[in-house]
Amino acid sequence: MSPPPHAVQSQADPVSVWTRRSLLGLQELSAAEIRSLLFTARGFSDVSTRSIKKVPALRGRVVANLFFEDSTRTRLSFTLAAQRLSADVVELTETGSSVSKGETVADTARNVVAMGVDALVVRHKAAGAALVAARAVDCAVINAGDGKHEHPTQGLLDIYTLVDTRLKRAGGVDPRLEAFDLTGLKVAIVGDIVSSRVARSNIAGLTRLGAEVVVVGPPTLAPRSLESLGCRVEHELDGVLGAVDAVNMLRIQFERHSGGAGGGGGGEATKGSPAFPSLREYKQAFALTRERLTRLKEGAVVMHPGPMNRGIEIDGEVADSPQSVIFRQVEHGLSVRMAALYLCVGALGSRGG
Amino acid sequence: MSPPPHAVQSQADPVSVWTRRSLLGLQELSAAEIRSLLFTARGFSDVSTRSIKKVPALRGRVVANLFFEDSTRTRLSFTLAAQRLSADVVELTETGSSVSKGETVADTARNVVAMGVDALVVRHKAAGAALVAARAVDCAVINAGDGKHEHPTQGLLDIYTLVDTRLKRAGGVDPRLEAFDLTGLKVAIVGDIVSSRVARSNIAGLTRLGAEVVVVGPPTLAPRSLESLGCRVEHELDGVLGAVDAVNMLRIQFERHSGGAGGGGGGEATKGSPAFPSLREYKQAFALTRERLTRLKEGAVVMHPGPMNRGIEIDGEVADSPQSVIFRQVEHGLSVRMAALYLCVGALGSRGG
Amino acid sequence: MSPPPHAVQSQADPVSVWTRRSLLGLQELSAAEIRSLLFTARGFSDVSTRSIKKVPALRGRVVANLFFEDSTRTRLSFTLAAQRLSADVVELTETGSSVSKGETVADTARNVVAMGVDALVVRHKAAGAALVAARAVDCAVINAGDGKHEHPTQGLLDIYTLVDTRLKRAGGVDPRLEAFDLTGLKVAIVGDIVSSRVARSNIAGLTRLGAEVVVVGPPTLAPRSLESLGCRVEHELDGVLGAVDAVNMLRIQFERHSGGAGGGGGGEATKGSPAFPSLREYKQAFALTRERLTRLKEGAVVMHPGPMNRGIEIDGEVADSPQSVIFRQVEHGLSVRMAALYLCVGALGSRGG
Repeated sequence: MSPPPHAVQSQADPVSVWTRRSLLGLQELSAAEIRSLLFTARGFSDVSTRSIKKVPALRGRVVANLFFEDSTRTRLSFTLAAQRLSADVVELTETGSSVSKGETVADTARNVVAMGVDALVVRHKAAGAALVAARAVDCAVINAGDGKHEHPTQGLLDIYTLVDTRLKRAGGVDPRLEAFDLTGLKVAIVGDIVSSRVARSNIAGLTRLGAEVVVVGPPTLAPRSLESLGCRVEHELDGVLGAVDAVNMLRIQFERHSGGAGGGGGGEATKGSPAFPSLREYKQAFALTRERLTRLKEGAVVMHPGPMNRGIEIDGEVADSPQSVIFRQVEHGLSVRMAALYLCVGALGSRGG
Repeated sequence: MSPPPHAVQSQADPVSVWTRRSLLGLQELSAAEIRSLLFTARGFSDVSTRSIKKVPALRGRVVANLFFEDSTRTRLSFTLAAQRLSADVVELTETGSSVSKGETVADTARNVVAMGVDALVVRHKAAGAALVAARAVDCAVINAGDGKHEHPTQGLLDIYTLVDTRLKRAGGVDPRLEAFDLTGLKVAIVGDIVSSRVARSNIAGLTRLGAEVVVVGPPTLAPRSLESLGCRVEHELDGVLGAVDAVNMLRIQFERHSGGAGGGGGGEATKGSPAFPSLREYKQAFALTRERLTRLKEGAVVMHPGPMNRGIEIDGEVADSPQSVIFRQVEHGLSVRMAALYLCVGALGSRGG
Repeated sequence: MSPPPHAVQSQADPVSVWTRRSLLGLQELSAAEIRSLLFTARGFSDVSTRSIKKVPALRGRVVANLFFEDSTRTRLSFTLAAQRLSADVVELTETGSSVSKGETVADTARNVVAMGVDALVVRHKAAGAALVAARAVDCAVINAGDGKHEHPTQGLLDIYTLVDTRLKRAGGVDPRLEAFDLTGLKVAIVGDIVSSRVARSNIAGLTRLGAEVVVVGPPTLAPRSLESLGCRVEHELDGVLGAVDAVNMLRIQFERHSGGAGGGGGGEATKGSPAFPSLREYKQAFALTRERLTRLKEGAVVMHPGPMNRGIEIDGEVADSPQSVIFRQVEHGLSVRMAALYLCVGALGSRGG
């Protein structure tokens, strides 16, 4: 592989910590491994602001997006990340006919890898699918979301955004932040926690770096049992707002509620869900409205993993407010995904090179 | 950005006229701006005939096709145009799940641009969608068709084809044509004018360059009110045929007629439409048949934006006749789209570079 | 075009035999032409094992995948093959709206080629579609499967796999194998022969190189009339197993049986077919079970064109056994498709260059 960007080269340690060929979740990672990803992401972050958005790190390598579940924006972010590393990208969206031909996830993965692919980016509606793929092949595998389990690069980009925000405010010289330590940071994750792989990855990564996480939602969406993940559980948003440094507003995923009548499609914003009596009551209790924004601590930031339902879980004015870092999250997604691809393919370097 | 091709460099004026970062429609453009696009397109036109079809003009830049409405051939043409400029291309076809998750066009555009994209090519079934996107972001936006409003690159490629045809006949030395002046040229656009963004873009661009446009169709599809666009309106094709230099045959877009029973799919060619009594009567009055072809003026050309319904609005023999420039239109589409991407991204040059 | 890889250059003869601009089927090819493809594929085979999987052979050329019928894995293999030759690739999946707009296959092909494409890879559910496209345009056309007719690159990769297996066992020095002569090799193709374009291409290619082919299936799927293709027809697998050097297990294609109730989708594995009384009876007679594997000749190999239905036509243990070369077939698909693109585009060299 080509040499890594300068920022990375100059401090070899954080990178050399990484020895895995796959990124399946944040739950199994050490704090040092998470820092290695964040550190590498920071080294790549300036590539996105150049007019020629390319580094030759993965030139001649092939990244395959293997999406058994559709996800336009995550797929796009991985594609752009791979292109910036000068890799070729191929798409394999298996939502239609191919899976229905009866092939297993492991066989599909083996097939793609037999074509000479260096990294698989796997998305699937079943928890554990990326792990199944990783066991079947010997190339890099990145989990791009598996059921309600994990979405590690989303977790990382949220964490990166929090670190980046603090670092910029500190003038970029706080050594504790340099080490991506989040001790003392308080983060609220609000909404449909129980269905959310994003929440799971966030909780794992944030707590590993020393942050405190409180999840907030009605008991049906934020049951007490989630405390086993290492977070606090609250059922009232208003009691939490003034005490946290960041509020991460999740989209209500009607389609993942068992027995949900909300179905998919545009109707979801108006329909009910078995998880709470009515959308209006949900909004009254848990939406981040303009009024609630004023009750946030000074300097607290508003996050959302997208796509937003403006007027549902978040008011349009809130999304566009100075406190919102929502589109910066998207931007950081690129750096984090470049880092994940770079480190995992790099861990195979001695084999492939 | 890399320097433009030689033809463009040698006469800097027509290019420097262009200062917009977006191409949303031809109606708002001056004649000088349209000439700037056509002039740049001509500079690029020989790239397509080389065996290595590449210029480095947009190397390291990223073009995103953001298609909320499907359009295989327009998407393909923009993709090839971007590749020839050495840009990376990503696809975001939002016809399915992503839009139904409730995100606005503006938010989708902001998201994509937050990932570091330099140009958005936007297609949407609603008029004004490209404008909404352009207001939401600060990168280049090219309208690839918005409802019944405009399809500016289709208009430009039609105009380019007319200029190119005349210029070749003149031996390439007519200074008036060199300047893309179409004074005296008469163009008939036939068919479903009222539903057609292609017609709107053609009328605007052609009249700006001095051509006369007559639109022809039954009163339901070519109402008298269209005269406000600056064209003549006729309801009889046979009275027009002998007087024009070009006939542009539009596809009947059953799916755009309000209350139309024609639906989509293969059945459309056989079904009726509320806009006229029967397909047979429509064909008798407005199809370009082999017989009607003989009544065209010498040197007149036949155009069609595609996809053609052979045997409906145009006979197969007419499409394949020497008068037909239909596949040359497709070819010129590449040059025109290269020009649009090059000029709009170039207008951002000082920022991005 | 850039010079071919060294292996190819050093022995110019086998390559210069190839003068076609299209690969439509193996039935019309001479043995020398098939050897030319296999020889070129071998020259490319080591590219896939490099960390930088690229040769500049088709730099600046454009390959369009024109898939009227969906096929994720074949499309992916052609895409990767084209990328390894440094070509640009565009996708045109016409399963949806575009075809339904009433355009003919010939017009679609003409349109794509008018955009400056150098090679069309065509897949269609109707036999002869690739030929129709090839007649309509003057660029290279590769048949990627046309109805029940042919799938020549699949046939070639199966043949390549057999040659490669024998050559490796011979230590790479058997001059007969160097020339890709398969005299004396016995191959069984098992299953749904009558619906299979893969079987047709295999039979044509294998017999041209001197191998003997026996097709095996129930009379409904392997009717006696297939003997006209130059193969033997058997209705009992157990009588054949011990006598062949390779068993190629086809997937049962319920969706291609006229009057079949199997439809598509995941249900196909459990539903019946008018071609045989029940799936269980089919499996008892024709599946390659673990037990049957033991009855193969020593050194015999197991093949499958994929996607596999584990537990239906092939047991999982058989697919994963040392005798299985199933994933090597996939790997060789890349080399064979690189060869097909390289030779066909190369045959146009004097025009395009």
